[in-house]
This record gives sequence, structure tokens and C-alpha cells, in this order.
Amino acid sequence: MPEQSKVIHARDYRWEGVPLKAYKTDGTHFRAITRQTLLGADEDERALGHQTRYFEIAPGGYSSLERHQHTHTVVILRGQGELILGDALHRIGRHDCIYIAPQTFHQFHASGDEPLGFLCIVDRERDRPRLPDDDELARLRALPGVGPKVRT
Amino acid sequence: MPEQSKVIHARDYRWEGVPLKAYKTDGTHFRAITRQTLLGADEDERALGHQTRYFEIAPGGYSSLERHQHTHTVVILRGQGELILGDALHRIGRHDCIYIAPQTFHQFHASGDEPLGFLCIVDRERDRPRLPDDDELARLRALPGVGPKVRT
Repeated sequence: MPEQSKVIHARDYRWEGVPLKAYKTDGTHFRAITRQTLLGADEDERALGHQTRYFEIAPGGYSSLERHQHTHTVVILRGQGELILGDALHRIGRHDCIYIAPQTFHQFHASGDEPLGFLCIVDRERDRPRLPDDDELARLRALPGVGPKVRT
Repeated sequence: MPEQSKVIHARDYRWEGVPLKAYKTDGTHFRAITRQTLLGADEDERALGHQTRYFEIAPGGYSSLERHQHTHTVVILRGQGELILGDALHRIGRHDCIYIAPQTFHQFHASGDEPLGFLCIVDRERDRPRLPDDDELARLRALPGVGPKVRT
């Protein structure tokens, strides 16, 4: 079957026909995250080398603190948060665009009253995330700004 | 120099440090479009196989009617519009997600009072767009719904 172009209509941060999944990866640590894979899931849109996912983190929730060789392109769609990115802590908000380079530790935190929702684009073929080892964790926890935000 | 992670803050559909460019491609036909390349421009973020661009079409404006082998992943950030996509005309609005498969004719039209703004993700290496030839144009113009919207 040939590739089919399509429009996926959105309403209130849900996309028509796209399943809402609890985000879970064995061995990672996270809280209160959902995922919708908008384009490039499994056998869909094979001409696409990348996947477009929408993640939403409930207020007070956070993503796994991890790094990997593959990159992330992130665009925030709603809410506010803080991002551990390498050795720095950034405030992030609507439409901010984030590049996560290879092997950069990162962790998203939803702050404020609204969920933190963002698009995250990744290569279809990618390596598994790595959690920090004890030395890396100790180093991150000692960083000003970053340290108090670290969740594992 | 190693790849650098970064946060590009947004405000009112402009991204910090990202130049705003008039969108122009030799031999194509379009009206009232600006472009900001958020990630993956030229020598930036070489680990990224794709580019993330933000386009904005002024009310009443439209993009070139074209097709190409490379794909588009599009997410609308603001405004409303109509999209010629293959043989169909779609109404599009905020957060709608669009997949444009290889060789599918497409043309974005901004309707309503607000600009139509959208993210468009493409492979870094890609072929040049092709305009419709006379036969293809006649065929598109004869399609119900699509025909009256065609602009060249």
C-alpha cells in the first residue's frame, strides 16, 4: 500500500484516532506522563525517518533523568516547567524549542498548575536511554541549581 | 566543537536569536510567508538528520502548490486555514498534525484574521519541490472542493 498523506485533527491536546498511553520504560524513573505518537509509529509512515510524539507531564511530575546517543527535538505546546539539561537548569514555557544533543543528561519537570505538554521528535531507529551511575548522580547533585531538582 | 544542547526561548512566535526570513524559492509561487529555522540549519546540530522550521502565512496568503519525494511533518501552532492535500481539501487549525507523503501535491492557505503558523519538519537532505505541469494543474482544477482553491 502506498504511503498515505493525512490530517490528524487535534482538540484539547488529544489527536483523533491516536491512542493515549501511559509512558513507561523498564528501568527508568518518571512520574505522571502520557504519550501520544502522532506520526511515525511502528508500521506507519515508513517514509519518515523520525517519529513525532506528544508527551504530557502532570503538575509536579517529571521525566526520567537520562542520556542517550540519539537526539531530541522538543517544542513546548502548553504549561511551564524546568529542565535539567547537561549542567544547567532552564525555565521552559510555551513554544520554547529545545535541542538535546547526544549523551546530554536531561529531565523535564512540570511546574505550575497546568500540565507540561510538548512535542518530541526522535529518529525512528535509536539507542536505549541510560540512567546516571552513582558517580554521575553525585556529580549532578552537587551542581548549583541542578542538584536540588534531581529526581530518581 | 562538540554538539551543544540548547533552549531557544519563544515569545509571540519569534524565537531568540533565530533570524526571520522571507520564504522564497526560485520558480515557486507563494504569498506572504516567513520562515524561522529553529533547529538543524546549515552547520547547526549536525547530529540531527532533520530540520525544524516555523512558517507563518499572513491572512489570505498561501504556499506554493508543489510536490516532492521528501516528506513533511507539520503541526499547526496558530491560526486557521485550508490545505490542499492530494485530491482533498482539509480545514486545519491549532495543533492539527499533518503528514505529507512523497509526491503528494500540497498547498497551505491562511484563512481567518490571524496568521497561519506551523512547524514543519523535514529531512536535512531533500529533493527540490516540483510544481504541477499543465496536465496536473488541469486535473487539480477540475476536482470538487480543491479546484477553486488552487493558486499558482
